[in-house]
Amino acid sequence: MTAKGKLFLLPLPISTGEIDKSITPFERSLIKKLKYFAAENIRTARRFISSLNEEIVIEDLIFFQVDKKTDQQKVNEIINLIEKGNNVGMMSEAGCPGIADPGSMLVDLAHKNNIGVIPVSGPSSMFLALMSSGFNGQQFEFCGYIPVKNPSRKVAISKMEKKASSENITQIFMDTPYRNNALFNDILANCNPNTFLSISCDLTGENEFIKTMRIKNWKKQTIDLHKKPALFLFGQCL
Amino acid sequence: MTAKGKLFLLPLPISTGEIDKSITPFERSLIKKLKYFAAENIRTARRFISSLNEEIVIEDLIFFQVDKKTDQQKVNEIINLIEKGNNVGMMSEAGCPGIADPGSMLVDLAHKNNIGVIPVSGPSSMFLALMSSGFNGQQFEFCGYIPVKNPSRKVAISKMEKKASSENITQIFMDTPYRNNALFNDILANCNPNTFLSISCDLTGENEFIKTMRIKNWKKQTIDLHKKPALFLFGQCL
Repeated sequence: MTAKGKLFLLPLPISTGEIDKSITPFERSLIKKLKYFAAENIRTARRFISSLNEEIVIEDLIFFQVDKKTDQQKVNEIINLIEKGNNVGMMSEAGCPGIADPGSMLVDLAHKNNIGVIPVSGPSSMFLALMSSGFNGQQFEFCGYIPVKNPSRKVAISKMEKKASSENITQIFMDTPYRNNALFNDILANCNPNTFLSISCDLTGENEFIKTMRIKNWKKQTIDLHKKPALFLFGQCL
Repeated sequence: MTAKGKLFLLPLPISTGEIDKSITPFERSLIKKLKYFAAENIRTARRFISSLNEEIVIEDLIFFQVDKKTDQQKVNEIINLIEKGNNVGMMSEAGCPGIADPGSMLVDLAHKNNIGVIPVSGPSSMFLALMSSGFNGQQFEFCGYIPVKNPSRKVAISKMEKKASSENITQIFMDTPYRNNALFNDILANCNPNTFLSISCDLTGENEFIKTMRIKNWKKQTIDLHKKPALFLFGQCL
């Protein structure tokens, strides 16, 4: 009987070109040994592997798309491949696969089929933002995308602001990049002037910007977050 | 006027010796350029730098202890050093500094003094566990250490189980390693047989163990988590 393969969870850089800031030597050497990849975006995955400059022949690799439109039957094909003894590397569009991305379906099926899952360390914008906030990292919540429309949007902001201040549970959230400036203004308009807000923008990138201060001080600041990847955090300072 | 220095947030491996699995080339080259370090545990920090084999003369480096007993005055000395143009690298005992560790005080003061904070990608056991769980990574909560005594302990387990099942917010929690087996048994005794539990133990280490299944299946499994670093997660599978 052939031993089963494994599912390797491979993070990608969160800012283009920043390979050495993002990828460990372990991940690099692992990718050199893999033939099969499950990718949220095959083009991004190919480009990433090629950017490693490891003399890997991209044409010899086999890619499977796993995104939110992929049905379980397609994912089962990948599981079968692993069952037969092949290792598969799973890649998100950016950052850690399986977090805020559709790859968790493949991880779930791997567990159900008793296949080993091996996570590899790499960049996560959420974690970099949390580390850099100065807020409580003992208890925190990633709330994902904030609702687009009011009153849900205002309610969500107010709920997170309250949870951060009264329970000291750091609240991490985001919006689609083209709505970042609107979100920033919504926060300024609706929050207590003494509430602490941390913003992390273009993490690991050329225009990385990280700042934590009270809402009343943010009001004095001019920033442009338009179409830039950003995370927003409410929390308490010591 | 001298430009201010910066505060670099430098992750450490979460399992001994696993440098290439944990540290990026960027972090390695950064450490070679730094003279000042703020460390949760100076001995661990020294040993880590020395393990990089980068011909760094450890005796020339200057270390400041920043742990939960450190008062703000001591931390202010580090801030003054950065104000004067020196870069400082902050290191946790293991994993990402500023997350579940006392270093956030230094980050907080850096922001208050308008000092740039630069986070570096590296291992986080919480994130590796979340990636590997197969659970919802769009919304999750790190609840930190579970209460030691009943009834608080049972209440906490039940609250997290409910939040994971009814709101699909993945719940991540832990206990002191010598109580891991007790926590595992408390979960089996108190949770619904159909609830999904993921356990990640000794991540990136030699005895790495990661498994997600229903409580009723965990009941058939013999595991020993005693004194091994472990994370527990409640969540929903797709």
